Amino acid sequence: MSLIAVGTMAFDAIETPFGKTDRIIGGSATYVAYAASNFVQPIQQVSIVGYDFPEEEMNDLKKRGVELEGVEVVKDKKSFFWSGRYHLDMNSRDTLVTDLNVLADFNPVIPESYQGAEFLMLGNLAPAIQKSVIQQMKTRPKLVVMDTMNFWMEIAMPELEETLKLVDVLMVNDSEARQLSGQFSLVKAAKQIMKMGPKYLIIKKGEHGALLFHENEVFFAPALPLEDVFDPTGAGDTFAGGFMGHIAKTKDISFENMKTAIIIGSALASFCVEKFGPTRLKEITKEQIDARIQQFVDLVNFDIKLV
Amino acid sequence: MSLIAVGTMAFDAIETPFGKTDRIIGGSATYVAYAASNFVQPIQQVSIVGYDFPEEEMNDLKKRGVELEGVEVVKDKKSFFWSGRYHLDMNSRDTLVTDLNVLADFNPVIPESYQGAEFLMLGNLAPAIQKSVIQQMKTRPKLVVMDTMNFWMEIAMPELEETLKLVDVLMVNDSEARQLSGQFSLVKAAKQIMKMGPKYLIIKKGEHGALLFHENEVFFAPALPLEDVFDPTGAGDTFAGGFMGHIAKTKDISFENMKTAIIIGSALASFCVEKFGPTRLKEITKEQIDARIQQFVDLVNFDIKLV
Repeated sequence: MSLIAVGTMAFDAIETPFGKTDRIIGGSATYVAYAASNFVQPIQQVSIVGYDFPEEEMNDLKKRGVELEGVEVVKDKKSFFWSGRYHLDMNSRDTLVTDLNVLADFNPVIPESYQGAEFLMLGNLAPAIQKSVIQQMKTRPKLVVMDTMNFWMEIAMPELEETLKLVDVLMVNDSEARQLSGQFSLVKAAKQIMKMGPKYLIIKKGEHGALLFHENEVFFAPALPLEDVFDPTGAGDTFAGGFMGHIAKTKDISFENMKTAIIIGSALASFCVEKFGPTRLKEITKEQIDARIQQFVDLVNFDIKLV
Repeated sequence: MSLIAVGTMAFDAIETPFGKTDRIIGGSATYVAYAASNFVQPIQQVSIVGYDFPEEEMNDLKKRGVELEGVEVVKDKKSFFWSGRYHLDMNSRDTLVTDLNVLADFNPVIPESYQGAEFLMLGNLAPAIQKSVIQQMKTRPKLVVMDTMNFWMEIAMPELEETLKLVDVLMVNDSEARQLSGQFSLVKAAKQIMKMGPKYLIIKKGEHGALLFHENEVFFAPALPLEDVFDPTGAGDTFAGGFMGHIAKTKDISFENMKTAIIIGSALASFCVEKFGPTRLKEITKEQIDARIQQFVDLVNFDIKLV
C-alpha cells in the first residue's frame, strides 16, 4: 500500500503581511510527505536536492517512514530555491526569485524498490517529467494524481495534454482550471478538463475551499475559517498529501471515499498555514488532526427534513 | 407567525456579460417576499412605490399571500430606480444610475394590522429608517434581521451603530463585514461585529457561499456550483427571504435551525441568479425547491469515521 510522492524538495524564502523568513525547508514533495505520513507509511519519495539540503531534514523524513532512495543528491549544486511575497488577501503572490539549481537537471529514475506502488502523487513539475515517471511504472498504480500550474500551460501545453491523458485525478486551483479550459464557469471548466483525460478533477480555491468533480457529480469541501492565515506556502501540497494519505491508507478510490479524503486534505492544509513552512506539520498529533476533522464536520453539518 | 418585510420595491435595469434588460421589477422587499412566501404566509410588506409600479405586480404578490397595506403608493412620483453593470466575475458591479424618486421621502408607518408579527426582516435602507421600524413594534418580534451596505458605513455610521444594537441577526457581504469591523480576517471581523449588537452574523460570499457566526460557533453553507450565473441581482435578498421564510415557518430561532435556514436561503438564491430579476422566483415549484435543497445536501455530505 505504498505511495510514491514525486516533486521538489527545496528552500523557500517567504514574505507575508505577518512576517518574513530566510531560507526555510519547502518543496512540494516535502509537504506531501509530511502530510501523507500521518496516514500511511512508507512514503516513497522521488526528488532531487543539492549539497546544501540538511541531513537533519532527511532524518526527520526517514523517522516518519519516508524512503529516500529515489531522492538524488547532487554534490556540486545547490537545491532549488524559491522566494515569494504574499499580498494581504493571501490568495495572490509575487515570485521574487526562482533559482532552479539542481531542478534544471531533474530526470527522475524510479528505484526498483518502488515498483508495485499502488498510489502515485505527481507534484507540480514539467509535464514531460511527470509523464516519464508514469511510464517507468511497470504496473500502473491504482490511482495517479497530478498537480500542475499555469506556467506549463503557457510553455508546454502539448506535453501537458499528453500527460493529462495518463492520470486519474488532476488538482489545480481555480485560475488554473479557467486557463486550462478557457471557461470562466468552474462547472463548465470541469466538464472541459475531464474530456482531456482525468476522470476526477479537484479545483482548489484556497480560503474558499475545494471542489471535486466526477462525471455529473460534484462535492464541495470548505476551508476552515481561520483567525489568521500566517503563511499559505505549501497548503496545496499539504492538501494533496492528506488526500493521498487517506486514499492510500483505505485503498478505496471511490468518489465517496475521495470526498472524505478531501476533507482530510483540507484539515491538514488548515494546520499548514498556521506557521511558516512545514513547521506546524511536524508538530501535529493524531489527536489534533482528529479534532480538526471534527471541526470540519461541525462546520458543514446541518439537518434538513423535507416535508 | 407572520413576517414583516421592510425594503424597496423598485425598478432595475441590469447589464451582465450575458445580456441586458430594460426596466424590470426589483427591490429588496420584492425579492424577500417572493422567496419567503414559499414557506410562510402572510408576508406583511412595508415599502413605498410611485405611480408607475404595475398593478399586475401588486396582484402577483397578493396571490402569494403578500399583504400590501404597509406599501405606500405615491401618486405623483416615480418608483425607485437602480441601474448597474456586472463584471465578468459577477461578484463586482458598477452602479450606473440611482434615481431615489419616492425613496427620498420613505418614512414607513407600520399598520396596526401588522402589530404582533413575530419576525421582522429589515432590507437594506438608511439605518435610521430601520431603527424607526423596530421602535414602532409594540411587541418586539422574536427575531429581527437586518441587511445593510457599505454606503451607510460611510455616511451614517453613528445611526448604523445605534440600529445594530437593536437587531438579532446582521447579514452583510464579506467586504462589508471587513469595512464595518476594520478586520481583514472574517473570523476576527465576526467577533468584532457581534460586540456591536447582533448575536448572530451572516457573511454572504456570493459564489463562495455564506458563513453563520454565533458566539464561538461557525457554520458554512456553500453556494451551488452553477454552469452560468445569469444575473446576481437580488440574490442576497432572495437568500434573506428563504432564510426568514424557513425561520418563520418553523418558529425556531436556534442556531441549529438557522443552519437549515441558510441552506434554504442559498437554494432559493441559486434559482434567483438563473434568469433576470425575480423571473425565476415566480416560476419555481415546491418540488423544484426540494430537489435543489437535496443538491445542497449531496454537495457537502461526506462520511468520516475517526479511528
